[in-house]
Amino acid sequence: MENRFPIFDVAPVVYYGEEVVPVKSIAEESINVRATVVREGHDGLLVEVVLIDPSGVEVSRTPMREFWPGTDRYEAEVRTNSLGLWHFYIEALSPDRTLASKSSLYPIFAENDLALIGAWYEFFPRSEGAKLNKDGSITSGTFKTAERSLQRVADMKFDVLYLPPIHPIGYAFRKGRNNTLTPTESDPGVPWAIGNNDGGHDAINPVLGTMADFEHFVKAASKLGIRIAMDFALQCSPDHPWAKDHPEWFTIRADGTIAYAENPPKKYQDIYPINFDKDYAGMLAESFRVLELWISKGVKLFRVDNPHTKPVQFWHELIAKVNRTYPDVVFLSEAFTRPAMMHALGKAGFQQSYTYFTWRTSKEELRAYGTEVSVETSAFFRPNFWVNTPDILPFHLQSGAPAIFAMRALLASTMTPSWGMYAGFELYEHLPLREGAEEYLDSEKYEIKVRDWSKPTLAPFISLLNSIRRDNRALQRLRNLRFHPTDSDKIIAYSKRDGENLILVIVNLDPIHAQETIVHWNFYDLGIAEQPMKVTDLISGYTFEYAPHTWVRIDPATPGTPVGQILKVTL
Amino acid sequence: MENRFPIFDVAPVVYYGEEVVPVKSIAEESINVRATVVREGHDGLLVEVVLIDPSGVEVSRTPMREFWPGTDRYEAEVRTNSLGLWHFYIEALSPDRTLASKSSLYPIFAENDLALIGAWYEFFPRSEGAKLNKDGSITSGTFKTAERSLQRVADMKFDVLYLPPIHPIGYAFRKGRNNTLTPTESDPGVPWAIGNNDGGHDAINPVLGTMADFEHFVKAASKLGIRIAMDFALQCSPDHPWAKDHPEWFTIRADGTIAYAENPPKKYQDIYPINFDKDYAGMLAESFRVLELWISKGVKLFRVDNPHTKPVQFWHELIAKVNRTYPDVVFLSEAFTRPAMMHALGKAGFQQSYTYFTWRTSKEELRAYGTEVSVETSAFFRPNFWVNTPDILPFHLQSGAPAIFAMRALLASTMTPSWGMYAGFELYEHLPLREGAEEYLDSEKYEIKVRDWSKPTLAPFISLLNSIRRDNRALQRLRNLRFHPTDSDKIIAYSKRDGENLILVIVNLDPIHAQETIVHWNFYDLGIAEQPMKVTDLISGYTFEYAPHTWVRIDPATPGTPVGQILKVTL
Repeated sequence: MENRFPIFDVAPVVYYGEEVVPVKSIAEESINVRATVVREGHDGLLVEVVLIDPSGVEVSRTPMREFWPGTDRYEAEVRTNSLGLWHFYIEALSPDRTLASKSSLYPIFAENDLALIGAWYEFFPRSEGAKLNKDGSITSGTFKTAERSLQRVADMKFDVLYLPPIHPIGYAFRKGRNNTLTPTESDPGVPWAIGNNDGGHDAINPVLGTMADFEHFVKAASKLGIRIAMDFALQCSPDHPWAKDHPEWFTIRADGTIAYAENPPKKYQDIYPINFDKDYAGMLAESFRVLELWISKGVKLFRVDNPHTKPVQFWHELIAKVNRTYPDVVFLSEAFTRPAMMHALGKAGFQQSYTYFTWRTSKEELRAYGTEVSVETSAFFRPNFWVNTPDILPFHLQSGAPAIFAMRALLASTMTPSWGMYAGFELYEHLPLREGAEEYLDSEKYEIKVRDWSKPTLAPFISLLNSIRRDNRALQRLRNLRFHPTDSDKIIAYSKRDGENLILVIVNLDPIHAQETIVHWNFYDLGIAEQPMKVTDLISGYTFEYAPHTWVRIDPATPGTPVGQILKVTL
Repeated sequence: MENRFPIFDVAPVVYYGEEVVPVKSIAEESINVRATVVREGHDGLLVEVVLIDPSGVEVSRTPMREFWPGTDRYEAEVRTNSLGLWHFYIEALSPDRTLASKSSLYPIFAENDLALIGAWYEFFPRSEGAKLNKDGSITSGTFKTAERSLQRVADMKFDVLYLPPIHPIGYAFRKGRNNTLTPTESDPGVPWAIGNNDGGHDAINPVLGTMADFEHFVKAASKLGIRIAMDFALQCSPDHPWAKDHPEWFTIRADGTIAYAENPPKKYQDIYPINFDKDYAGMLAESFRVLELWISKGVKLFRVDNPHTKPVQFWHELIAKVNRTYPDVVFLSEAFTRPAMMHALGKAGFQQSYTYFTWRTSKEELRAYGTEVSVETSAFFRPNFWVNTPDILPFHLQSGAPAIFAMRALLASTMTPSWGMYAGFELYEHLPLREGAEEYLDSEKYEIKVRDWSKPTLAPFISLLNSIRRDNRALQRLRNLRFHPTDSDKIIAYSKRDGENLILVIVNLDPIHAQETIVHWNFYDLGIAEQPMKVTDLISGYTFEYAPHTWVRIDPATPGTPVGQILKVTL
């Protein structure tokens, strides 16, 4: 009998539109599989999930258990262990295994670790090694001078260095400081206003150096264990070669002009948007050509600018085309927009995405959002938690209190396996454009920054956080984030476990006052028996015995370890 | 470009296992259709749902609206208007309609009204016209005497009369009064212990009369506008002809005997269960033969006994086979079990199901369950709210207070389009088997009841409720149930609207004390502008003007209209 035990609501299954696309995974990752299965009467039912590796071999058959009595909903963890396209199916059996039902096969795609795991740092090469001259003018940094900053990035133990666009910058409607429309001769322009007579998306801004300089820079970074992520911004300055050679890629208004780009409330007078509906195939081919060029230079990560202003289907096809030839290339979606669009871009193929973490500050907000990204949407949406970006100086950083910088870095680096930080954060930069704005004053988007790296810095703490991340695989996974009750709204507690690596994190969300509470560990989620735990605080180095209900006091005024604990449990 | 605007999470779509099966509907019914659609950038998006009738003609194209800003989730109502297999699809368009995406086609099956709408009454024919003789013995009722009871059912304006099994009853292990294992000669046996030398599922119990008597009974009911629902209980007494002729339909134990049926904690020593895995095709064919026989006698409704103890797939195939030839036959699932199984049976094909209403008593329980069945599961699960059954005398009725009987009937008959009542309810029968049990003392399952119909009765109120239901199409629909806040936990308020028929219901859940509160009507859900409403209470006949925030006082001691109001709004 077919459907002897009907199998309903198999999860995770991801649909891009109405097409089943693979669940996101990396080579070594545990995935929670669920299905509802019913059997008549009172005889037992055996439900198993069968995992098939990329070569088509059944590698595991895992019994599923009803995760809450009476629900008929079964779950089990499956674990991929190599790259490629895996599948799973559900089988329901009578105990004697004479009667059975099987579900369809559902896909899981295991990608390169960088698709999920990475500490990202962002700097503008033109500011690295830039000099303030005696006459008040600034000499731009170049790839050569920026190469000297790589050691600073490596010392903080970042894995990825993301560069805003490095291409020639247009002159038409060039912006001045603080987004003014009246630039001076010396204003360098916005890197996202791509293209001028020196070339477009396939060229290097001559101010920064030559293609050879760039290649040298990528290699130097690589020697320090740093991968370069480039910006891929599908738009251009009116001076871009595309504007002349490919008018069919733009919307020409009745008066013969092209409308500039907007992302309300922001206006980009110096940027033309692409019209993808006029020569879709041409734009797809050109994008592939450009990406392939940079891939040939050693770049495997692309941070895609505002993908939500371009057709989702375009990304679906472009990313699939790139990944068919270059399976280890990773695309990060810079979509700060409505949840459905952010999710759609993940389903379409983006390996990871910017998130709302930047604005989640209270304990309940962090718990809810952490659970959303780790449990509810992890099959198709990999979060990259950025503490700041050149576009966003969140209100909570505007006090400049060092503890809140440390706290946000601690949260971002331990809640998810990918987190990001834009240069200046470690120097506690915190002045807004104006009261009520979440933008930086004197934003680096419009000018070259000459920073004083001798000022007090959070860099050693960042380095410690990234080092702890490298040493603890539990922190390199997403789906394992679990929150634990505490008696205080100011103290959040969560855990991550992968195999024998079990990490507890306790954070004081109050950057000013000491807070104390009891943390009530959920031992079911920890996967151990309820008992006192021997723990080592990887921040302070101290070892403790923590009771199942742990009293903690965290004082942001404590030198060196101001804001929380990262506890490794001895199993 | 395909997927120009990707369309996600179309609803309602029903899966039986992994097979898409039609959304449940009747000829004239509004269905809420939803889909998530994203478009890049800031241009407008037009989302429409297109409805296709059973002949393949596109009959409507309805603009969908984003039901909460920022969700990208769109909704619209579509309305079927004839029997048969309908389809819908979603289309997303740019305003100028030059760019478009279409979803797949999704099925909706519009069935006969009785699949959704009906007031059901249950009686045991053997008790109707039964007589208590002077020597203490009882003369059984028959179809002939039961025919005289049909007027009583018609006077209460019930649409359907459901009969427990009318087949010969086995002698082996026959049960005595109150489920005892020591019957006397005069005990009539349990009607569900089907079959003896006089025949099985295709025969009439000679005590009740002949097949001709039954046919006469069905016709007499039909003349009064009452349809007969039969019991279909796939099990048998050890004396059933199947036990001798078809040993392959049973599980024979090592000692050569057959195990009796159980539905823990209940034991049915007088009943053999079927083993469907031994001769599945044979049992399917026999079931079809039996059903077809009774269909030929004019029966179009079957109440299926304990379907959750038989394979779900069996029902999927049997119901499909019956409905292919007899599309107006309705199956009611008597599954009081885990939600996943009850839902699976609906997805498998049952037109309607018994529910948990019988145990939902508080305002919050009724609101949550009402919303579940009307909104969350209405695509595949049609509830039939029974206030009692021969198996269930719920605790809340055991006080015998007339007001609670009236209140439960008022709730059941107005919350959902199908409700049911088992004979004796109108006489306030309320004595439990023992303290702590929800079963009747001297249950009619084991004995013939001689009732005194001259006692105080709720029948006039039942008649009024069913009459109001017949006059107001809003009460004949399921998906339109909406709850409205009140300031009291004791007073529940809800509304139902279908076209120009708008009904408000206010019920005092306290059967003893008068309660008063303010009802805060949600005018968005009512579909009218916020303003005072002219209403007529269909119970009392009074006309009022009700403010948007209505003060009400309901006193269960009020003669005649004890427990609530059914208000028709003048639009």
